[in-house]
Amino acid sequence: MTEGIGRVRLRFAPADRDVRVPPGVSVFDAASWHGIAIDSTCGGHGTCKKCKVKVLAGSAPASGLDVRAFTPEQLKAGWRLACLAQADSDLEIEVPPLVTRPKAATVGVGRQVILRPAIQKRHVELAEPTLADQTSDLERLLAAIDDLELRVDLHALRRLPTVLRSSDYDVTAVVVDDVLIDVEPGDTTGRRYGVAYDLGTTTVVATLLDTATGTPVAVRSMLNKQQPYGGDVITRISATMLDPESLGRLQALAHDTLDELTREVCKEGEVDPSEVYEIALAGNATMIHLALGIDPEPLGVAPFVMSARTMPELFASDLGVQAHPRARAVVLPALGAYVGGDIVAGMLASGMDRDKRLRLFVDVGTNCEIVLGDGERILATAAPAGPAFEGAAIRCGMRAAEGAIEVVRIVDGSLELSVIGDVDPVGLCGSGLVDAAAALIEVGLIDRTGRFAPVEAAERIAPTLADRFADVAGERVFVLAWHGAPGDVADAVFLSQRDVRELQFAKAAIATGWSLLLEELGVPPREMQQVLLAGSFGSYLSAASAVRIGLVPELPVLRIVSAGNVAGEGAKMTLLSMRERAGAAALLQEVRYVELSDRADFNDRFVDNLAFPG
Amino acid sequence: MTEGIGRVRLRFAPADRDVRVPPGVSVFDAASWHGIAIDSTCGGHGTCKKCKVKVLAGSAPASGLDVRAFTPEQLKAGWRLACLAQADSDLEIEVPPLVTRPKAATVGVGRQVILRPAIQKRHVELAEPTLADQTSDLERLLAAIDDLELRVDLHALRRLPTVLRSSDYDVTAVVVDDVLIDVEPGDTTGRRYGVAYDLGTTTVVATLLDTATGTPVAVRSMLNKQQPYGGDVITRISATMLDPESLGRLQALAHDTLDELTREVCKEGEVDPSEVYEIALAGNATMIHLALGIDPEPLGVAPFVMSARTMPELFASDLGVQAHPRARAVVLPALGAYVGGDIVAGMLASGMDRDKRLRLFVDVGTNCEIVLGDGERILATAAPAGPAFEGAAIRCGMRAAEGAIEVVRIVDGSLELSVIGDVDPVGLCGSGLVDAAAALIEVGLIDRTGRFAPVEAAERIAPTLADRFADVAGERVFVLAWHGAPGDVADAVFLSQRDVRELQFAKAAIATGWSLLLEELGVPPREMQQVLLAGSFGSYLSAASAVRIGLVPELPVLRIVSAGNVAGEGAKMTLLSMRERAGAAALLQEVRYVELSDRADFNDRFVDNLAFPG
Repeated sequence: MTEGIGRVRLRFAPADRDVRVPPGVSVFDAASWHGIAIDSTCGGHGTCKKCKVKVLAGSAPASGLDVRAFTPEQLKAGWRLACLAQADSDLEIEVPPLVTRPKAATVGVGRQVILRPAIQKRHVELAEPTLADQTSDLERLLAAIDDLELRVDLHALRRLPTVLRSSDYDVTAVVVDDVLIDVEPGDTTGRRYGVAYDLGTTTVVATLLDTATGTPVAVRSMLNKQQPYGGDVITRISATMLDPESLGRLQALAHDTLDELTREVCKEGEVDPSEVYEIALAGNATMIHLALGIDPEPLGVAPFVMSARTMPELFASDLGVQAHPRARAVVLPALGAYVGGDIVAGMLASGMDRDKRLRLFVDVGTNCEIVLGDGERILATAAPAGPAFEGAAIRCGMRAAEGAIEVVRIVDGSLELSVIGDVDPVGLCGSGLVDAAAALIEVGLIDRTGRFAPVEAAERIAPTLADRFADVAGERVFVLAWHGAPGDVADAVFLSQRDVRELQFAKAAIATGWSLLLEELGVPPREMQQVLLAGSFGSYLSAASAVRIGLVPELPVLRIVSAGNVAGEGAKMTLLSMRERAGAAALLQEVRYVELSDRADFNDRFVDNLAFPG
Repeated sequence: MTEGIGRVRLRFAPADRDVRVPPGVSVFDAASWHGIAIDSTCGGHGTCKKCKVKVLAGSAPASGLDVRAFTPEQLKAGWRLACLAQADSDLEIEVPPLVTRPKAATVGVGRQVILRPAIQKRHVELAEPTLADQTSDLERLLAAIDDLELRVDLHALRRLPTVLRSSDYDVTAVVVDDVLIDVEPGDTTGRRYGVAYDLGTTTVVATLLDTATGTPVAVRSMLNKQQPYGGDVITRISATMLDPESLGRLQALAHDTLDELTREVCKEGEVDPSEVYEIALAGNATMIHLALGIDPEPLGVAPFVMSARTMPELFASDLGVQAHPRARAVVLPALGAYVGGDIVAGMLASGMDRDKRLRLFVDVGTNCEIVLGDGERILATAAPAGPAFEGAAIRCGMRAAEGAIEVVRIVDGSLELSVIGDVDPVGLCGSGLVDAAAALIEVGLIDRTGRFAPVEAAERIAPTLADRFADVAGERVFVLAWHGAPGDVADAVFLSQRDVRELQFAKAAIATGWSLLLEELGVPPREMQQVLLAGSFGSYLSAASAVRIGLVPELPVLRIVSAGNVAGEGAKMTLLSMRERAGAAALLQEVRYVELSDRADFNDRFVDNLAFPG
């Protein structure tokens, strides 16, 4: 965010809160972005005249509506409608106690989002036309909601004459953002739904949201149906390069996935899909390109260029989702080919753009996205961690599915495992891999360079564990679980020496990423106040183990927070608040993307970071 | 236009022209609307900095671009860029002699239209991305054409990565209005086509236009394929009321008509339909509603309400036209259910909003639209003339097709006929009907009340014609053409007494319309300076006959002008000039619609007007 240049400072009394916002933002929005509630029933649209605040210091010119809302004395005393008062310079604002409670929802990492969805409904009862009043149907409707300046979808116009006349001119206008998409008979204002998706390479999650209340109505997830084309983005991009028809097929599979999830959440939530008026999608750049049928090849080869950071106006149907026929779709913008909309969503959900603490956000995966912010500046980068955390390239590696060892601890010289599904272990997933390595480092069975302890040293250091070292196909391994009798390596789940090397490569890439960002910001790692571990893998990682192997800076474990599915949360916020949506767009300006692949010092740093912390 | 309230007056030197425009219009546009040429190569987009003018009197604040285009001395002397100088108050402007000649085309009734089409192409050669410049494809393109603030169509984005890379970043951006709809390899700026349609109830005309030059490339017409559903708008509306599936069928037939014409003009003009980026449509409200699949029933029953006067953003595909897949469509706005976009197009093409003379515009047909303007005020109405002019309800009536008597004259006591196709006459079309009645009135064989002269009187008044009176099925008729021997009425083409009555009803409706408008304006008929006869029938009408039967005010015939297919011309102007398009939209504000059907004095006037002028 270019050193915070150009921001203005607003001080809110009596809450005694300082906030900094881009100039031109309304006082109402500046407050609601920072969770400071100002009375409003219209949500900042300039119609309810309830958002009265008093400017104590600084200048905010009175608007035309102010003149109607206040007496000349009040205007002189600094009273303004907060939704119309622009923060063009530093201001001190007094916020009166709330009369009405604004509707808000808690989303993301404890973010309080004041509801201001793009989906709006207006119930109106119109006068019937007469020979003396031949106003067209559309002008009649628009005149009744003239605080909105609307574009009109042909679909709405096609329905209008019939719906008006069949409902005695008692109708509800359905608006998404600035478009009238439909008109419904009677009062349907209570039913306003949206679906938020986290379109992951592996897993896709859909949340049906009641945008009137902010409540999640139903959540479903499933594997991305593109799986047969490869487990990561590179294999899917390669598929499109090898066969010109693959793009169409991958697009269709993404559409099937999204549409099936939509049907499932609607069924579970007892919502008709035609009551879903907007959808929001967070995904990495490749997933978004594929879902929209845009050639992803330039994402996969240097210099790694996106078709667009911000996608144009879209319909749900462009993403294969059968909702309201003119439902809109909004896609979280991306910072770069490898810091996609899923990460922007994550920043939004974790408040990376607002929190003043020095915070690190790490989405651990094959491509690991790293964001560092201190409330003034935000830096982001992508580190090529490789597939170790996904279980690939690891001898006994597997996804976090039934039978995967997900937790490994050594307590009093004995090995404790936790297996997903409480069944016999069949493999090792990412969190188990990190745990296993951390535990063995801790007891000294893996040294700083990543080498397994020699036989004699192992027997000395950890006599109860030394017999778990074995030889598989000429490679030394540490057996986590025997399938048959101890000593019989057939079907055993183990960690091999090469697995440790793979893990070292992965964690070195990540550590190089965040340490270079810290250097860019000019702060030492010890000043870090919080690390957020995001993504389907990161969220399950043990904080202590992550510290132990050097995946994250050395911090008290309480400061290392599992952030959960922040991409999905960011998508939800986008549906619930136009302001959060604007915030996501602002991140494109505020975040500086640091490209690692062309840095001369990357390789040196990478080698330095291969070792485990002492 | 509410008494011209709020217009500002601009005086242009050295042309010594006064023009009046709505406040806020740019000086450039005000000039070009009135055919005063100001230098410009960008067409008023604020990029070429060539449209330099000097403000001699009045105030026009300098814009940011002015500061860059002029020295402080020049600014002080009143120099401004005309495209950025707003006419907010009366101004006197000096226009320097032209350096470049603006591209203009003559369209409509002698209208000189300065080309400023919505279709724009920009040829750009972009730098290839590098690791140091990972700007997204879209941002790279938009940065090269950043004088345009564009929305982006997903179609364009889908094509962008491939087209950029296959053409070495040498591409042409295709823009329609404010939307980037495509990107094409290489330089295609020379090829920018549009199609303008006159979507008539009977006949549909398509003109393929080269919007780069304003040249019509090909013109084709055909009967509207909706014909089987009835000859006029009311029968088609009725069809939709009787059978719920008719709307879909009528829509499909309109689409077929438009699409077939499009293919024909493209073939004739050797233009690929994908090079047609915008289409424009003028039609009456019913035709437009049907073509867009909007229920027309409210148009057909009191209080005669349109779904919308201005149609929303449309695609050519919404009208069934296969052009560029994202070609836009613009529909001329309508003033009322019975003064449709065809008439607004006609006003545009005939300059009803600019000419200072007192002028009457009459589109003669089953529904007769009448517009009266004096350069300050414009009034419009619709008169229910009935189907007489279309040949319906007339005993020997027929459309203006082969075999129709289209001209009737009595010269030296003998009857002269002109027949379409120079074949044996088989019927009487509208212009022949008016001619026949006018000729018989002139010689005294029809009296002022519309009665045929009695036998004896006829023999006295016109001995050479009296034997043409005959009796057919008990009704007295005047035979225009015998099929067999004179006196044998079998297959003869004649004018019956009832036909004259039908004609009287029709002309009385029209005369009532324009006489009430003249009264509204407070001017007597003799002050009329020009009458424009428009529409497929009006254009063929004999001016002298129209005066003789009282269809139009009594004027020297040279002042009665056949305006031709003004609806089609207006559609062409819409394609060629954004300013003319804005002018059409402005007409909705400026024209006052006078509803005749609820006027208490309509019937009295109607009866008064049944008589022919003395």
